[in-house]
Amino acid sequence: MKAMELSCKENQAVLTLNKEAVIPVREKGQLLIKVAAAAVNRTDLVAKETGNLPKGNAILGVEVSGIVVESDTDLFPCGSRVMGLVNGGGYAEYVVMNVGNAMPLSDQLTFEEGAAIPEVFLTAYQTLFWLGNLTTAQTVLIHAGASGVGTAAIQLAKQLSSAKIAVTASSAEKLALCRKLGADSLINYREEAFSQKIIEETGGRGADLILDFIGASYWEQNLASIAVDGYLILIGILGGAIVKDVNLMTLLQKRITVKGTLLTPRSDAYKAKLTKEFVARTNKLFAAGRLKPIIDSVFQLENVENAHRYMESNKNKGKIILTVN
Amino acid sequence: MKAMELSCKENQAVLTLNKEAVIPVREKGQLLIKVAAAAVNRTDLVAKETGNLPKGNAILGVEVSGIVVESDTDLFPCGSRVMGLVNGGGYAEYVVMNVGNAMPLSDQLTFEEGAAIPEVFLTAYQTLFWLGNLTTAQTVLIHAGASGVGTAAIQLAKQLSSAKIAVTASSAEKLALCRKLGADSLINYREEAFSQKIIEETGGRGADLILDFIGASYWEQNLASIAVDGYLILIGILGGAIVKDVNLMTLLQKRITVKGTLLTPRSDAYKAKLTKEFVARTNKLFAAGRLKPIIDSVFQLENVENAHRYMESNKNKGKIILTVN
Repeated sequence: MKAMELSCKENQAVLTLNKEAVIPVREKGQLLIKVAAAAVNRTDLVAKETGNLPKGNAILGVEVSGIVVESDTDLFPCGSRVMGLVNGGGYAEYVVMNVGNAMPLSDQLTFEEGAAIPEVFLTAYQTLFWLGNLTTAQTVLIHAGASGVGTAAIQLAKQLSSAKIAVTASSAEKLALCRKLGADSLINYREEAFSQKIIEETGGRGADLILDFIGASYWEQNLASIAVDGYLILIGILGGAIVKDVNLMTLLQKRITVKGTLLTPRSDAYKAKLTKEFVARTNKLFAAGRLKPIIDSVFQLENVENAHRYMESNKNKGKIILTVN
Repeated sequence: MKAMELSCKENQAVLTLNKEAVIPVREKGQLLIKVAAAAVNRTDLVAKETGNLPKGNAILGVEVSGIVVESDTDLFPCGSRVMGLVNGGGYAEYVVMNVGNAMPLSDQLTFEEGAAIPEVFLTAYQTLFWLGNLTTAQTVLIHAGASGVGTAAIQLAKQLSSAKIAVTASSAEKLALCRKLGADSLINYREEAFSQKIIEETGGRGADLILDFIGASYWEQNLASIAVDGYLILIGILGGAIVKDVNLMTLLQKRITVKGTLLTPRSDAYKAKLTKEFVARTNKLFAAGRLKPIIDSVFQLENVENAHRYMESNKNKGKIILTVN
């Protein structure tokens, strides 16, 4: 099969096409998938840079869509359209996927759309509902609202909770996308302090849940924005990792919960449980078009290095997809 | 009735005896208690110092034991022995208590013991089970093991979980008390780095739950001690509030949950729910002597200023009790 494999060229990690890669061998409880599309994730860039490969797999890629070609379960017989997380290996013609991670791909969605769903929607779902207690929240603040996880989180909060949804983004264009997806309150963080706006708009109460990808540079404003008994869920540190002078008394007085999380390193069992609940609550919403994967751009698998450079430039709104023909 | 009331003397807040204080008026859903004993809490010292009085009550004291003398509920008829949290007013001959906060005081316990239970045991219970997910923990680390909340937490973890219990304290004598109450691993933090010992003793895994009163000065070691998916519950900042350089990446990579909490400012409804669950799970254990309130010393109500100075000196192991005759 063909696959984009990681190799070293003049001391630099690069992805090169191998047309003779070995088709992975399915174990019991796994599906063999003929890949139609895969998505690019930041974790792929980190793996390429550091050489820390998921499960030692020289083929990157943690989410795909495609057609089942080998199976031992009636849930996903051969010919089924599926999407889901994989433990590496997605940048290829074939990949194995644990049955627990497989999700049915509705006929209403294209394969490109299917590949754009698993990582960002599962991350957003886990963060909002399993970690962030969204069900009881009056107000949720979603930073980087136009990002992959941001666009998924806005839609999930809109469809599955009654919380007021506030978002931050850096441009009017990005905020317009957030509005379209269901955001109630739009904050251009370049033009105003988001904490002040959140406090104003909630009558001094603050946000019950904050979903943050930024980290250090937002810490002070996040703590000022958060309500008593609020949750701050950290899923990225694009704004730096080191916070100077953290005042623990604020955590005590406001009874704040801060949780850090990453989805990719979690166990197969955890991902399977999350996938199962997610499918049960969202399958019909995707089929009805009430939840929509947001695709920024589509590259051919062979052009994956261009797709990586594009992600590094931070210009994308929504997912970057690779198609495998 | 007599009560120790807060007043101002030469620009200093002092507690003085008022023999003609007005007996508080019970509302529907409340009990009037003839107080037998009250306990001293750090929140009393803070209220005295800052003038921020709980519910504006000039009589301090947030937990008592005594006998019901007025009631409108069959749950606690007149003559019942009770203990529980009150919204201030405990340093007096009579106090009102919400029925939801009242707990039956077993005949096997003295009133002094009853007054030593509510605040520390409810705080420890809430922290371990409601916030800290102790039920699934393999190892819990309890700092200040010989303190009021510490001694309660060790016993509750021993009786109601199968977790291995590690404690820190500053002396062999305090650690001996912790051992007697059920601690498995004893760490004198003056003689060794607790993080190193925890990592060694858990085979590199770390503690799943840390109960911390210390704050800033323990932050780095706490993060080094904690297991993946672990909980760090902050209920005090005796070691300072400001942490220099918090690395958020550690929170993400270890998927750590940090929660700050204080019990006293929480709502009556919250306390009532906590009290109800606590009574259901611990009533028989107290009656059987398997849970024991730890009393350091007993003062007459009139000598409360001495009791406060003693607490300020940080020498107590267990609770400081005031008796009201």
